[in-house]
Amino acid sequence: MSFTGTLPGLTADDSDRFETALKKFVGARELPLYKMMAYHLGWVDQNGEPEPAVVQDRSHGHLVLSTAKAVGADNASAMPYAVSVEMLYNFLLVHEDVQNANTERNMRPTIWWAWGPAQAINAGDGIHAMARMSLFEQRNASGHAADPRYISMALESLDNATLDVCEGEYLDISYQERAAVSVAEIVTVARKHGALYGVSAKLGGIAAAADDGVIDALYKFGSALGTAQNLNIDLQAQWPAEGTERTEVQRGRLQSKKKSIATAHAIENGTPTTRRRLGEIFMKRVLDPADLDEVTIILAETESRAFAEGKIAELADEALDALNGAGLSAEQQQLLAESAKLIVGM
Amino acid sequence: MSFTGTLPGLTADDSDRFETALKKFVGARELPLYKMMAYHLGWVDQNGEPEPAVVQDRSHGHLVLSTAKAVGADNASAMPYAVSVEMLYNFLLVHEDVQNANTERNMRPTIWWAWGPAQAINAGDGIHAMARMSLFEQRNASGHAADPRYISMALESLDNATLDVCEGEYLDISYQERAAVSVAEIVTVARKHGALYGVSAKLGGIAAAADDGVIDALYKFGSALGTAQNLNIDLQAQWPAEGTERTEVQRGRLQSKKKSIATAHAIENGTPTTRRRLGEIFMKRVLDPADLDEVTIILAETESRAFAEGKIAELADEALDALNGAGLSAEQQQLLAESAKLIVGM
Repeated sequence: MSFTGTLPGLTADDSDRFETALKKFVGARELPLYKMMAYHLGWVDQNGEPEPAVVQDRSHGHLVLSTAKAVGADNASAMPYAVSVEMLYNFLLVHEDVQNANTERNMRPTIWWAWGPAQAINAGDGIHAMARMSLFEQRNASGHAADPRYISMALESLDNATLDVCEGEYLDISYQERAAVSVAEIVTVARKHGALYGVSAKLGGIAAAADDGVIDALYKFGSALGTAQNLNIDLQAQWPAEGTERTEVQRGRLQSKKKSIATAHAIENGTPTTRRRLGEIFMKRVLDPADLDEVTIILAETESRAFAEGKIAELADEALDALNGAGLSAEQQQLLAESAKLIVGM
Repeated sequence: MSFTGTLPGLTADDSDRFETALKKFVGARELPLYKMMAYHLGWVDQNGEPEPAVVQDRSHGHLVLSTAKAVGADNASAMPYAVSVEMLYNFLLVHEDVQNANTERNMRPTIWWAWGPAQAINAGDGIHAMARMSLFEQRNASGHAADPRYISMALESLDNATLDVCEGEYLDISYQERAAVSVAEIVTVARKHGALYGVSAKLGGIAAAADDGVIDALYKFGSALGTAQNLNIDLQAQWPAEGTERTEVQRGRLQSKKKSIATAHAIENGTPTTRRRLGEIFMKRVLDPADLDEVTIILAETESRAFAEGKIAELADEALDALNGAGLSAEQQQLLAESAKLIVGM
């Protein structure tokens, strides 16, 4: 599950201010296209009428704010960067819902399900185009926030992270059709997806006009924790928490034959019989619930869950190690370390 | 049909250099994701093996080069801007092919048809993310090309144009489900789509570090010609040139119930009987060839083609008028005027 709370080090006020900034950014535009975006972001219903806010994962935007705070930027300078990366994250979700045919997200119909795939592709493209616009407004800010060097570094980092995610997504989709996928391949894909948290943490450093070394360290921190989270999301889909059912998005991932690091471990380390059973399942066009149960049984035999959890713990350690290069106070470092664990979902 | 030749004022060399720059930009990256892009751009087959180049519409990139030349920029400074807008145009095509379920473009299978919709959405997203990257390299250029003010103006203009297109696309898709669409509504949509040629011409001015007034005039020129072209594309789908068949993309547009300005004219000005017949057709879920023929017959009765052609001629005039504000030599103005006609398809 993704993290929907407020990160340690941020106050409820910080979180409210961010939500207000995001809402203002999208709400400044009038057309129905933007109502659809507001629906996706959880503020209005399908008719564009206000409804009680749906709690959503804002951890990308929040990570910008908390890393910025850790390296000494005020909230106001970090806000446009936080809005920017949150928009990017959400454009990817809107497209992922079409790609995986998810009918529900956060227990509400997805855009493609409510308005059709053509509108969902278009709404995602619009969110993508808007993602950088909050930064252009920075040019009118005062101090280093208006420094074109920082704005341009941020813009380039955002595009690079998006392209990393697309590279990962290409591999991810192509692995859906292959039975033989290795642990190393799955980690490579997760690292590509981790770039979005990498750029989130980096933008916090940019907002604070931090030294290049600090900005680099923050990128590595975010990227490693994002990688760990990406691997963990698939584990949580495989083994939902005690007493909870798989969500629509989790089922979608498994049924579209996304392979977790645990599955890759079983493919690499299982007996010939195990591998043949997995192969038979993944050669089906669509998996049904019985197939998903069968995979769970196989993964128990190969002890792949423990292996996967070990790998995720390693990556979380990698994130914390990276923080040592960011020159933070012990207290700030501790807050980010706790944030990392919450985002990874450990 | 879109324009696939070389615009007046550009040499075959200019056109070759542009193609080489575009190919180098995409080819600098190694993963299979980029092979898919190279396939879409017409340089390799589905296996990534070189094949004789497929002639494609490069008029967005070419318009950057020809406007830049008209206001005195050299080719080299304009090239990254031309690459940028051409990538944007192509990301939109890749997504349009999924949205309209086009199986073929330029007589080859589309990305979604060959690799599935999930890969096509992702490839389009990747092209979108890359579209600005050629501009970041400008920072290392010399002279005004490296001036952050111009780079940032260009980046912002590109995102604004993309968002305009998404706004137009939203309306376009929602009009597909409505029978009653007005001429004014169709022109509004076309103006949104025209923004992509608007930004192409504007980037030519930016590449030349032209005055703001000149840059504005170029934007208006490109935007009006793009609007005219957008309207004309739908007319050409309705009435293919003598002796030619409708292409897959043209059929896709009509069958997905995109309304041309001619159709909107008939809806607004037809007799009650005409309107009822059109209404019955557009209430069908999918149109078949007989429906398309029936629409053609109705449009002949309402003389909607002549009306539509008149409106397109008006917009083409608007484009030429805008050029008067760009302070061009008579010769350069003439070359751009000829380019406009070719792009509009008059």
